[in-house]
Amino acid sequence: MMDSRKMVFGVIGDPVAHSLSPPMQNYFMKKLKINGVYCAFHVAAEDLESCLRGARAMHFTGLNVTLPHKQAAARLARFASPQVDLLQVANTLSFEDDGSHAFTTDPNGFAASLGREQERFAGAKVVIFGAGGSARSIVYALSQLGISGLTIVNRIESKAALLAQFCLQRLAMTDVQAVSPNHPDLDLFIDQAAVLINATALGMHPLTGETPLQKFTAVEKKHFVYDLIYNPPKTRFLFEAEKRGATVRNGLEMLIHQGLKSLNIWMQENFAMDENTLSELKSLLSGELQ
Amino acid sequence: MMDSRKMVFGVIGDPVAHSLSPPMQNYFMKKLKINGVYCAFHVAAEDLESCLRGARAMHFTGLNVTLPHKQAAARLARFASPQVDLLQVANTLSFEDDGSHAFTTDPNGFAASLGREQERFAGAKVVIFGAGGSARSIVYALSQLGISGLTIVNRIESKAALLAQFCLQRLAMTDVQAVSPNHPDLDLFIDQAAVLINATALGMHPLTGETPLQKFTAVEKKHFVYDLIYNPPKTRFLFEAEKRGATVRNGLEMLIHQGLKSLNIWMQENFAMDENTLSELKSLLSGELQ
Repeated sequence: MMDSRKMVFGVIGDPVAHSLSPPMQNYFMKKLKINGVYCAFHVAAEDLESCLRGARAMHFTGLNVTLPHKQAAARLARFASPQVDLLQVANTLSFEDDGSHAFTTDPNGFAASLGREQERFAGAKVVIFGAGGSARSIVYALSQLGISGLTIVNRIESKAALLAQFCLQRLAMTDVQAVSPNHPDLDLFIDQAAVLINATALGMHPLTGETPLQKFTAVEKKHFVYDLIYNPPKTRFLFEAEKRGATVRNGLEMLIHQGLKSLNIWMQENFAMDENTLSELKSLLSGELQ
Repeated sequence: MMDSRKMVFGVIGDPVAHSLSPPMQNYFMKKLKINGVYCAFHVAAEDLESCLRGARAMHFTGLNVTLPHKQAAARLARFASPQVDLLQVANTLSFEDDGSHAFTTDPNGFAASLGREQERFAGAKVVIFGAGGSARSIVYALSQLGISGLTIVNRIESKAALLAQFCLQRLAMTDVQAVSPNHPDLDLFIDQAAVLINATALGMHPLTGETPLQKFTAVEKKHFVYDLIYNPPKTRFLFEAEKRGATVRNGLEMLIHQGLKSLNIWMQENFAMDENTLSELKSLLSGELQ
């Protein structure tokens, strides 16, 4: 009767057909001997509330939430974690007897994905491209990592200003500026920074020609350049930065770490990521991206 | 990306943890190379509407419906097949762009499960025990098989009378009577019948000591005795009838046939049952019942 007692998990998004979460979570479940199945559900924004009520009615164990539902899920859940309260975004819902609980595992997933590069962050200046929900999770993680200064670069400057205000007022950061990609001193800010992060969708499949940075002359060997995008594995942003000698990393490890953290929430476990699992999953998921 | 494009199917019921539909349908999907997954969802009666809205919001492909939701599902679906309209029960929901469509595959599943025993039915008298939703599907199938007379035996005689009325008025049957299990002529009705059918839950696991018939003296070698129950594989009803020399059959083949018919509705296919599939599934599902 194992099949009828399987726990049901899933990811909801629009679009969702290219999500790597199902192969990843089904890999985790097999590896960790969890009797569950993880599916992708294409849910339109206007159907989100029905979806969440239904998932609860059907006794789903948990859901991951991806674009464009991360903010609405935070709002619709009955209970929110302190991080969700602060960031107003959720990527993980857990269905308990008392209702739905919202969490976000993105900030911790980002931090865990840094590995030994994490030491670059304390006391360093960072330039982040983007000011949306993903950027908000990342600046929270950056504040926890003790960075000393942040430049937020965004085409819509008012959004960058709002995120900067959030950093100053809610995250107690002190040196934060919001600029447009055309700011004359952008190269200077890059030169002063140890880390550059792309939290926009620019360069994501299929628009792989795009990049949040047009001129890479200020990028050097000293920089750690991170792109939240993992499809393609090497965006034009990472490709150009690597050509300049920078150390680069894409978003695949963050995806894997946030995924295991979600599973730990659902299972109330504390499964740890080992090197073997990480490399098996990177290989499995890279194959899925082909 | 196969995992993210899997179609999602399931069975909803209360209880549902012992359903054989998930292993059966997952076997069909593997065998027929359908990229789908089939899960069991425990749904309480008061949550049925939320469940159905949610399943549609999540773009489920289809659901099977089991007790106690078969009547409510027929009512809540946007469209009903002619059989559902007539019987007011549904065991299969298909989610299309225009809304949910309700079907019942129980009558055809029953007929298909008879195999070469089907020839016993035309012109024959039948005794059926039970007058609930399952019995209603079976009497419809019996009317299609051209039986000549029907005795409906039920502890609550008014329910038997209602079903008899349905047979006379809606199924154009002519010789139908409703009796209680204590009717003095029950043995006579059994003697005149070629087929006896249990459509009650009496004898179902875990109350395996129960049986709809107390005294088997009228049961003989000439009888074909059918029990819709498949857990246990041989109810006390079948055991006693077989001891008297009757040919017996449990509900497992009906389950398998109605399941494939549901899958054909969801996939708009016409997959046929072959002997090999049937025997593999009987063996697989019998193993699940251990």
